[in-house]
Amino acid sequence: MDLKNKRIGIIGAGITDKKTYELAYKVGKLLAEKGAIIYTGGLGGVMEAASKGAFEVGGIAVGILPGHKVEDANPYVKIPILTDMGHARNVILVRSVEIVVAIAGGYGTLSEIGLALKMWKPVIGLNTWENIPGVHYVNSSEEVLSKILEFLS
Amino acid sequence: MDLKNKRIGIIGAGITDKKTYELAYKVGKLLAEKGAIIYTGGLGGVMEAASKGAFEVGGIAVGILPGHKVEDANPYVKIPILTDMGHARNVILVRSVEIVVAIAGGYGTLSEIGLALKMWKPVIGLNTWENIPGVHYVNSSEEVLSKILEFLS
Amino acid sequence: MDLKNKRIGIIGAGITDKKTYELAYKVGKLLAEKGAIIYTGGLGGVMEAASKGAFEVGGIAVGILPGHKVEDANPYVKIPILTDMGHARNVILVRSVEIVVAIAGGYGTLSEIGLALKMWKPVIGLNTWENIPGVHYVNSSEEVLSKILEFLS
Amino acid sequence: MDLKNKRIGIIGAGITDKKTYELAYKVGKLLAEKGAIIYTGGLGGVMEAASKGAFEVGGIAVGILPGHKVEDANPYVKIPILTDMGHARNVILVRSVEIVVAIAGGYGTLSEIGLALKMWKPVIGLNTWENIPGVHYVNSSEEVLSKILEFLS
Repeated sequence: MDLKNKRIGIIGAGITDKKTYELAYKVGKLLAEKGAIIYTGGLGGVMEAASKGAFEVGGIAVGILPGHKVEDANPYVKIPILTDMGHARNVILVRSVEIVVAIAGGYGTLSEIGLALKMWKPVIGLNTWENIPGVHYVNSSEEVLSKILEFLS
Repeated sequence: MDLKNKRIGIIGAGITDKKTYELAYKVGKLLAEKGAIIYTGGLGGVMEAASKGAFEVGGIAVGILPGHKVEDANPYVKIPILTDMGHARNVILVRSVEIVVAIAGGYGTLSEIGLALKMWKPVIGLNTWENIPGVHYVNSSEEVLSKILEFLS
Repeated sequence: MDLKNKRIGIIGAGITDKKTYELAYKVGKLLAEKGAIIYTGGLGGVMEAASKGAFEVGGIAVGILPGHKVEDANPYVKIPILTDMGHARNVILVRSVEIVVAIAGGYGTLSEIGLALKMWKPVIGLNTWENIPGVHYVNSSEEVLSKILEFLS
Repeated sequence: MDLKNKRIGIIGAGITDKKTYELAYKVGKLLAEKGAIIYTGGLGGVMEAASKGAFEVGGIAVGILPGHKVEDANPYVKIPILTDMGHARNVILVRSVEIVVAIAGGYGTLSEIGLALKMWKPVIGLNTWENIPGVHYVNSSEEVLSKILEFLS
């Protein structure tokens, strides 16, 4: 089974340590290899890493940006959406996807997890806010993929 | 000291038990008595209770609604804002106020707490999501008021 | 017949000549005197003038602002809504009101007129974009009032 | 010169006559053949025709939808953005692109033309609202292309 044209959101902080960056990169790559379209907030950190992973395997990274300048997008974003709506872009991001993967992250990510659960979207958590009922916690990029395949099968 | 024209957001679930309704009603009333303008999501439950409290002391309740129908507003909303933007209205609500009071609530409230903290707004929590770093937890409507007075002094 | 709690939007440019300012001021005042709540974009020019008119007769001016700073609001705004959504705040403004009054204005106003007509809201035009089918053109603040009374009767 | 990764918005009514559909289809096809990414509102009529044109030459059509259901997108949309924001999605559409092409259209299109001009984006008009200062009127899909090449050179 592949993930052709499945829309997966990858969320997390705009500034990250190296380990988190690597993790998000792997998740983006793994999912894009299977054909998924990767949706992120279009900026740095987890968003950049996941976009880069998609980019390097010829996949599509959509960046739903808070501002109005395309220059704000990380260089791996193929499709920039310039919302000029600040944090409200998070709502559009979560709405647009079928599954949300949360990697690490701060208050913005917490907010997006809450939103996704409110919208009844499956949320997969990797090194992120703990003990939120409804989040499916996993421990590796491979587990993210197998969890997603499980949800979509 | 009063709260004249201070903008206080009161958030929480649209369906509540009686105890939570009473609590939100008291908070809305106490704050509006001091002159605060009460901002809510304009629907039922905590939003209605807080609006009712403001209404009964001649205060102003602003309702920032998710839909486009004014009939969706609870009857105590003086100023309806029809965003037609679904959950993105939460972002506008949190942006518009100086302090957020979270009373009970589910995933939507969790999302708003995350947003408020992301925007560096003080968040006062009353019987709501626990153990979120940065939330100022209190135990009664009176404590909400004294906490707010403390923040604004 | 009065306009108690009727929601009227007054739109127009943020920078105006003195004559247009006077006109918008009169319209805001006339409508607020009858009890209408005045909704504007909250900034200068026509928005400020209309808000001032409402303010001076003890009415309520709502300012639906494009940015996130309350300081951007003109001093006559009683209820600021900080959308942080740029031009998308125009959509919220038009959605929230029952009738739109367009006074002078540039491309932003043209856009709002289009939106209001798209949403089937009555649009009253005063010295504004000409020859748009569906706009009710009038020539004075008094005519604005009588047109509104006609629509709401 | 090509249009690789240039972001072009094509706007117009959701219900059209056959001639307008053909025109929008040709414009979408011509631009996508040159490498442009086609942004539309994702629904029927002009939006569908332009998306179809892009689709048939292997291009990418982005659909920035008003609602929250992916099923609302026309079948040629590769990248759906589910804003759940009604007409506010028009603002995001216009913001996200470098040039706007307006084909026929009603009040919604008028609103988008106003917005685009307000944002200083070039607007090319084809059988659309007449006599709007600032719109570059052309008469065929070929002229749309040559106008765009002129702007971007």
